Amino acid sequence: MLQPRTIALDGMGGDHGPSVVVGGAAISLERHPNLSFLISGRAADIEAELAKHPALKARSRILPTDIVVAMEDKPSQAMRRGKGSSMWLALEAVKNGEADVAVSAGNTGALMAMAKLILRPMPGIERPAIAALWPTVTSECIVLDVGANIGASARQLGDFAMMGAAMARALFHIERPSVGLLNVGVEEIKGAEEVKQAHAWLKAAGLPLSYQGFIEGHQIGQGVVDVVVVEGFAGNIALKTAEGTARQVGQYLKEAMSRTWTSKLGALLASGGFRVLKHKMDPRRVNGGTFLGLNGIAIKSHGGTDALGFASAVDLGYEMAESGLVPRLAADLDTFHEALSGEDGETA
Amino acid sequence: MLQPRTIALDGMGGDHGPSVVVGGAAISLERHPNLSFLISGRAADIEAELAKHPALKARSRILPTDIVVAMEDKPSQAMRRGKGSSMWLALEAVKNGEADVAVSAGNTGALMAMAKLILRPMPGIERPAIAALWPTVTSECIVLDVGANIGASARQLGDFAMMGAAMARALFHIERPSVGLLNVGVEEIKGAEEVKQAHAWLKAAGLPLSYQGFIEGHQIGQGVVDVVVVEGFAGNIALKTAEGTARQVGQYLKEAMSRTWTSKLGALLASGGFRVLKHKMDPRRVNGGTFLGLNGIAIKSHGGTDALGFASAVDLGYEMAESGLVPRLAADLDTFHEALSGEDGETA
Repeated sequence: MLQPRTIALDGMGGDHGPSVVVGGAAISLERHPNLSFLISGRAADIEAELAKHPALKARSRILPTDIVVAMEDKPSQAMRRGKGSSMWLALEAVKNGEADVAVSAGNTGALMAMAKLILRPMPGIERPAIAALWPTVTSECIVLDVGANIGASARQLGDFAMMGAAMARALFHIERPSVGLLNVGVEEIKGAEEVKQAHAWLKAAGLPLSYQGFIEGHQIGQGVVDVVVVEGFAGNIALKTAEGTARQVGQYLKEAMSRTWTSKLGALLASGGFRVLKHKMDPRRVNGGTFLGLNGIAIKSHGGTDALGFASAVDLGYEMAESGLVPRLAADLDTFHEALSGEDGETA
Repeated sequence: MLQPRTIALDGMGGDHGPSVVVGGAAISLERHPNLSFLISGRAADIEAELAKHPALKARSRILPTDIVVAMEDKPSQAMRRGKGSSMWLALEAVKNGEADVAVSAGNTGALMAMAKLILRPMPGIERPAIAALWPTVTSECIVLDVGANIGASARQLGDFAMMGAAMARALFHIERPSVGLLNVGVEEIKGAEEVKQAHAWLKAAGLPLSYQGFIEGHQIGQGVVDVVVVEGFAGNIALKTAEGTARQVGQYLKEAMSRTWTSKLGALLASGGFRVLKHKMDPRRVNGGTFLGLNGIAIKSHGGTDALGFASAVDLGYEMAESGLVPRLAADLDTFHEALSGEDGETA
C-alpha cells in the first residue's frame, strides 16, 4: 500500500498557467493514484480547469491568491512583489510540511530566489544546485549544476556530487551511483584548480558514491556515469547546447528526408521508426530541473511545456517525494564535510 | 592568378602519421594547385608516402627529423624533449617565413605550448585561443575559445571577439562579422562579471564587428551569429557536448530504423537522404582547431582523422594563408585596446 503524497503546484506558473498545470496534474494522478495536490493561484481560473478533471478535483485543494510572478520578472522584482504569490504559496506548503514537493513552471530566477528564502539551504550548504535529467543512449543521467550559480568552489562541487548521488539513488534506485566530474581534456592545462581539488576529495573512501574521475562533454550522452558534476555556467551551456544540437540534427534529418520522392516515400514507410525517434528525443519526457540543497524539494518545469510535459515534472516530484531524499542527503553531506575537515578541507 | 602559398605540415602528428598527412595534402593540392608544402618528419617514411602522390611530391620539400612528440606526451614532456621535433620544425617554418601556416594532427597541449614558444603571442595579447568551426543549420560559425585556456578576463574575451571576427572575415568574407557572447539565461544571476564587462565593452562603437549581445547554448547551431565568444572551459565542454549529442542522435536514428521490416525498407529507400544527412554531419568536413593570437597561424587537426579529414584542416590553413589575417588582426586588436585604455579598460 503506497503512502499518500502531496504535491504543491504553482497554478499560475509557465506560459499557459492553470490549463497546463491542472491538465498535467490530471495525467500524473492517473499514474500515481496516491497523489493529492495543493494548487495555488486565482481560484476561479483553477476551479474552471478542475471542473474538466473530476478525479483530480476530488484530490485537490486550492491555495487562493491573486498575486502572480510574471515570466519576465527579474528575481529581485519577484522577491519584492512576490510575497503571497502562487509561487510563494507552493513553496510555503513544502516548508510547513503540508506538501512533500513543490512544482512550478514559473520563471527560474524567481523560483530559485524564493526557494532559497523560504526553504533555506541545508546545514553546511553554501549554494543549492539545479539538477537536470539528461537522456543517454542507455537511459538517463543526472547533470548538475545546470545554472543555479556561476562558478563553484571545490567544496561546492563535492556538495553537488553528494546531491546528485542522492537524486540518482532516489530516481534510479542505485545504492552507490557512479559520479564523474566534467572537465576538459588536456591534462596539464592551467586553471580549474577547484575541479582538480574536488577530484582529489571525491577519490576519498567512505563516500556514498562510486567516483569515476573526470569525464568530457561527449561522454555525458553515452551514459558513462549516473551523475555528472559541473559548475553552473558550463553546465547550463552544455545543457542548452545539447538541446540545440538535437534540434539541429532533427532539422537536418527533416530536410534530408524531403529531398527526393524516393526519400519521401522511404520516410513514409519508416514513419514508425521516426515516431520512436521522436518519442526518444521528446524534451517533454525529461522535463524538470530539480533544486537540490534546500530543506525541501522544488522542481522547475519548462515554462513553455504542455500538459504532458508538466506531468513529467509532477512525476519527477512524486519520485522525489517517495524517496525521502532530504534526510538521507543531510547525512551524506555530513559525511563529506567531516571528511573535508579531517584534511583542512574547510579552507577551500 | 593566385599567389603561391606554402603550408608546413607536421608529418608525424596524429594517430596515423605520414599516410594521413601526405594523403590529406594530396587531396587539398587538387583543390588548391597554388599550394606547396614543407613536410617535417622521418624522411624515409614521408618519401615512401610521397612516392604514391607524384603531383604532391613535385611541390613538397621534406624537413627531416627523427624526433617525434608522442600523442600521449604531456605538454611539459613535449617541451623538454620536443626541440627539433616534426611539430617544432613545422612551427619554425612559419616563424621563419618559409611557410604561411602550420598544420599538425599531433597532441593539442604540446602543439599549443610549442606554438606559444615559437610563434609568440601578438603584441598586447595575454592568451591565444583555439577557434573551432561549428556547423549550423544555415552554414557554419566560429566558436572560441574551445580549450586553449580555462577562464578568461573581460579583456581576453574582447580579444577573442576580435580574433574570431578576423577569422570570420578570412573564411566567410564578411567585412563586419556578427559576434555574440555565450552566457546563461537568467539576467540577474550573480557571477560572470567578466562576461558582463566584456558585453559592455563590445557594445562600444568603432569596433570592426557587429556585436549582437548575449546568446545561449541552443542558439549556436541555429547560426544566429558568425562568431561565438566564450572562455575555454565552457567552450570546450560545449563543443564536445555538441559532438556527443550529434553522435547520440545518430545512434537513436540507427536503432529506430532497424526496428521493423517496414522501417528497414523505408530506410533503404531513403538512403539518398541518409547519405545527405551523413555528409552534413560528417565531422571530417569541419576538421581543424585554429590557434589565434600568435604571430602566425597554426592549425590542429583531429588526431584520429583520415586523409579526407586532414585535407579539411589543410584547406582551412589555405584559406587562412590567403586572407592575410595576422596583420589585419593586429590592427583590430590595437583599435580594441586603445578603446579600452580610453576608459580604464587596462585595469580589467
